[in-house]
Amino acid sequence: MEKLYIIKIGGNIIDDEIKLSSFLKVFAAVEGKKILIHGGGKLATKMASQLGIEQQMIDGRRITDAETLKIVTMVYAGYINKNIVAQLQANHCNAIGLSGADGNMIKAHKRKHNTIDYGFVGDIDTVNIDLLQNLLNKNMSVVAAPITYDECGSLLNTNADTIAQEMAKAMSSLYEITLIYSFEKNGVLLDVNDDDSIIPHINSVYYAELKKKQLIFAGMIPKLDNAFAAVANGVHTVIIGKAEELKELISGTTGTTIKHE
Amino acid sequence: MEKLYIIKIGGNIIDDEIKLSSFLKVFAAVEGKKILIHGGGKLATKMASQLGIEQQMIDGRRITDAETLKIVTMVYAGYINKNIVAQLQANHCNAIGLSGADGNMIKAHKRKHNTIDYGFVGDIDTVNIDLLQNLLNKNMSVVAAPITYDECGSLLNTNADTIAQEMAKAMSSLYEITLIYSFEKNGVLLDVNDDDSIIPHINSVYYAELKKKQLIFAGMIPKLDNAFAAVANGVHTVIIGKAEELKELISGTTGTTIKHE
Repeated sequence: MEKLYIIKIGGNIIDDEIKLSSFLKVFAAVEGKKILIHGGGKLATKMASQLGIEQQMIDGRRITDAETLKIVTMVYAGYINKNIVAQLQANHCNAIGLSGADGNMIKAHKRKHNTIDYGFVGDIDTVNIDLLQNLLNKNMSVVAAPITYDECGSLLNTNADTIAQEMAKAMSSLYEITLIYSFEKNGVLLDVNDDDSIIPHINSVYYAELKKKQLIFAGMIPKLDNAFAAVANGVHTVIIGKAEELKELISGTTGTTIKHE
Repeated sequence: MEKLYIIKIGGNIIDDEIKLSSFLKVFAAVEGKKILIHGGGKLATKMASQLGIEQQMIDGRRITDAETLKIVTMVYAGYINKNIVAQLQANHCNAIGLSGADGNMIKAHKRKHNTIDYGFVGDIDTVNIDLLQNLLNKNMSVVAAPITYDECGSLLNTNADTIAQEMAKAMSSLYEITLIYSFEKNGVLLDVNDDDSIIPHINSVYYAELKKKQLIFAGMIPKLDNAFAAVANGVHTVIIGKAEELKELISGTTGTTIKHE
């Protein structure tokens, strides 16, 4: 099977122009087929506050009302997505920036919840693997914004980690997938205060043990659950580590690796 | 040669949610291959003023400084483009929304001018006909935002009429092109105050005569010059008329038609 890298970058690198630019240079140079999924960064929050739109959060999740949806669509699918694409083009990587609505890439539905109305937040139903395969075969690298849509024509706000996971799972029928979650830490750490305490490999037994002993930092659990769900559903390898070290993450010299068992 | 419709809609329809939605229903139902190019509308100006960014205009053209570029990228390539795409998808038209940077669709350069610095305004160099043909062959309808880019990775603001013209010219090597400029009038009018005074057909001789007699409304001249440049460069037919009458424009029962001579 041919290899495909699906790489997710988070807000911390998007907010840092210099770090983002050097990350994109490395991404552009990654050989073979690749997809980039980006999160949001602080610009949406900043814009919303400048425009006097109040942000509501429940359990660390943004409640997306109509005005917030407008802002995130502008910032994520417009400003961030197009700037990443233009920079990749300048680095000789033929990128194409898409939201979930484009080419029917990711269809979702509005989140249903008994007590909380999350507003325009989308839970993913389908990923259009034919579209992605066609674009990759034409040597394009897809840059996906964390915006999906539903069949009524409403755009929806969707977590970028989830998009990366769902895309990786769906594309695993066509490619050997390496899914890279890059963030601000060096990998999964045994001691959150010690950047060198990277756990190089975790399997499901070891993960259960670490969780039982409460050795996993709470903030890491959704990311790791995501990773294990991915490898349990056909993804070959998940790597978690620092965006600035993308090259080393790919070569396997740093970060935390989770393999299909 | 297979037919391709390239349809441009302007700001007046984009600003009107109801008109836009009914236009998109008709666009979705147009049979065969089609591309939609949209302009900006008033949202960018409104957002800029809410954010305290002053707009500079020279000869009716927006001077695009870095802050304005940020706004137009967000509004045109983000909000407007993605909402059009999501609505088309809901109408069973598999749309894909792109800026010039996406898939290297439209490469441009910063406008050079002896006395005026237009800022981040792009004049078009190349249109990627392979990309467009590939997407059209996969039954996708491209929705192009009026944003291009240069080889340094800078996004650029580009007039949507010009994008439509350049795209139509470039694609005329592959398709029989009908280029439709839709705007707020019924077509080219002999008397601007009489909506029924549509000139159904204009050729270059008649156009020269009308211009000489000053019978063409000044605001129409750039649009008509654009149309004649298109038919002089391979475009089969240009139709100018009202967005609300797209169906009738295509069937030839209203609007002004300019044919390749």
